[in-house]
Amino acid sequence: MDQPLAGIRVVDLTRILSGPFCTMILGDLGAEVIKIEPPDRGDHVRAQGSIVDGFSWYFAAFNRNKRSVGLDLRTEDGKALLARLIETADVLAENFRPGVLAEMGFDEARLKRLNPRLVVASVNGYGSTGPYVDRPAFDFITQAMSGFMAVNGTPESGPLRAAPPVTDLVAGLYAALGVVAALRVAERAGTGQRVEASMMNGMISMMAYLASTQLATGETPPPTGNDHPVSSPYGLFHAMDGDVAIAPSTPPVLKRFLGTIGLEDVLADPRFATNADRIRNRAALNALIDEKLAGDTQANWVARLNAAGVPSGRVQSLAEVFEDPQVLAQEMVIDVPHPGHGTVRMTGFPIKLSETPCRINRPAPDLGADTGDVLAEIGVTEAELADLKARAVI
Amino acid sequence: MDQPLAGIRVVDLTRILSGPFCTMILGDLGAEVIKIEPPDRGDHVRAQGSIVDGFSWYFAAFNRNKRSVGLDLRTEDGKALLARLIETADVLAENFRPGVLAEMGFDEARLKRLNPRLVVASVNGYGSTGPYVDRPAFDFITQAMSGFMAVNGTPESGPLRAAPPVTDLVAGLYAALGVVAALRVAERAGTGQRVEASMMNGMISMMAYLASTQLATGETPPPTGNDHPVSSPYGLFHAMDGDVAIAPSTPPVLKRFLGTIGLEDVLADPRFATNADRIRNRAALNALIDEKLAGDTQANWVARLNAAGVPSGRVQSLAEVFEDPQVLAQEMVIDVPHPGHGTVRMTGFPIKLSETPCRINRPAPDLGADTGDVLAEIGVTEAELADLKARAVI
Repeated sequence: MDQPLAGIRVVDLTRILSGPFCTMILGDLGAEVIKIEPPDRGDHVRAQGSIVDGFSWYFAAFNRNKRSVGLDLRTEDGKALLARLIETADVLAENFRPGVLAEMGFDEARLKRLNPRLVVASVNGYGSTGPYVDRPAFDFITQAMSGFMAVNGTPESGPLRAAPPVTDLVAGLYAALGVVAALRVAERAGTGQRVEASMMNGMISMMAYLASTQLATGETPPPTGNDHPVSSPYGLFHAMDGDVAIAPSTPPVLKRFLGTIGLEDVLADPRFATNADRIRNRAALNALIDEKLAGDTQANWVARLNAAGVPSGRVQSLAEVFEDPQVLAQEMVIDVPHPGHGTVRMTGFPIKLSETPCRINRPAPDLGADTGDVLAEIGVTEAELADLKARAVI
Repeated sequence: MDQPLAGIRVVDLTRILSGPFCTMILGDLGAEVIKIEPPDRGDHVRAQGSIVDGFSWYFAAFNRNKRSVGLDLRTEDGKALLARLIETADVLAENFRPGVLAEMGFDEARLKRLNPRLVVASVNGYGSTGPYVDRPAFDFITQAMSGFMAVNGTPESGPLRAAPPVTDLVAGLYAALGVVAALRVAERAGTGQRVEASMMNGMISMMAYLASTQLATGETPPPTGNDHPVSSPYGLFHAMDGDVAIAPSTPPVLKRFLGTIGLEDVLADPRFATNADRIRNRAALNALIDEKLAGDTQANWVARLNAAGVPSGRVQSLAEVFEDPQVLAQEMVIDVPHPGHGTVRMTGFPIKLSETPCRINRPAPDLGADTGDVLAEIGVTEAELADLKARAVI
């Protein structure tokens, strides 16, 4: 059986991270992704991240399942070829600043003329309307503007960004979902449309109950570190040889937790009788828990608590994550052969489909590796290719 | 034109957050979502988060665009009705621990017999195979286990969870995308399948270049707080009246930044000539920048820097986010009338579709509000409904 997006062709103008993450997911699901890059240097990410023998593993991870076409879109010939590719495509993806694609000669009216069924996916910082439309975007800034940083951290640390570029990735993920949804419309009604996801909007949508609290009460949630604002006990506790994260989510789970560590009687203490009492006396309760946990190892506590149905685990470094037997069993680390560059290890597929799974159909391409093939498919002759090459259009 | 998922029926057994977020997105895109709840108390979230006049705004926000059917799935009659609903559905969504659905009598073979085109979406903690399959999941724990907490925070703070339940939400988002992709297969090939997303796998996929660095070099990224590991200057700086987040992403942007704040000559200083120099002397450079920024307000710097093409913004509290003119222009705060409960404010739709937009088709339902209608649609008579009600099955 074909992959979910078999037969879908994506012309991909995206670069760096948010857009390439979107088109990578589409490629993982079986779409043909044609990555258009400046023919001289390609996507900036080719020179970023950890470079092994001249090859960026960061680029490899986010550009798997793509073909690469070198095309200078500042030239008229480059633009003409892009127009011909768009005529053959189901999806056009871009993450320029709003307005740039139109300035290049591809405004909405022209795109519609070229291909009325086209799904045009835009990933950007703040959306394509509103007072910030011209602002340059960057993950760190949208983490700050979205409200995320104000709650991430502790009262001592002040507002903190998350290390991973979460706003780029969330925006890319929403865009991919929007594209697949819009393809259903295109295939049923024959009508394309514009799909947009922004780093700011995406991150705001992730504020969950913090957003509900703000909107319902007007009370602004403070940074809470590892303490849950409305639950105690909860957090990182200290075993003999390391921390254990423990989250007893409901009263029955709390009872099992306290029973497992030998504190079954603590709820009879008036300081700890109710959740409100336990929040008020959090430090005293945490000290009692730590005293018990100090009697055994992290690994033993994690095993015993989970066996008792108490959510718990350890803080794993990325080194530990990629050796975790669960992570390996879930194939969340994969080895991808890249001809000429050895084998690249990267994270696997978080969407598991039983019948039509995500898979590596092709590794991340060398710059321009597919230029000749892709252009030949749309009718460019050998002689034309040679001429375009000589003039550095491709 | 119909919404993207018009005509798609989702039978939704999910509760709390990860699964309900998945089905909320499907509903926002136009699917009919039938939320099955225990008839006596419903989803726990009905009693959680900020309660206004007895109504949870947290529940309202994550259960918009759903119908509610009260059904006791511990009874044989309840299970028989669920089977009949499944026969009429395109999607069955659940976020039980792996194995629970089969224990309830709905293993894969039975589901396939009931409905060979059914897409079965499972959202869980660690995936449905591997050594942790029986572990109870909770956002805090999968933040710890996925490697996220180890890089979130500062050397002083130690590992920190993010305040929003990011692993729940990312898993729900991947599941929604997997469902829409699997529907394309079901509609074309007539074959259903199992779609799975886990909190652990989803979060691992968000580690981006940190994962690539770990896998390429074996070097484990430390928590970096607000300093970018490979770029300087970058971070929070101090204007007259508050912080400004600034991320000069490339050498030309850096030049524009330094020019805008009156430090154009600083790159001539050998301490700051190259990025490596600037990382080494980060504190000294940051002090020079802060000295300049102290001369004007946060708002003025943000405006001037963005006008110069330098990504910058302020750290906004959620109170500020929901009054931000950009956020309002993007309709990321919406007012939803809930008959009997007033108007609930909640976050809007991060996926923008120009022709078939996400929208509120119905507000979050009262518990069991649609039981009679939905069961009548599958042929349950008035007399049978009365009997089921009398026996507390519905």
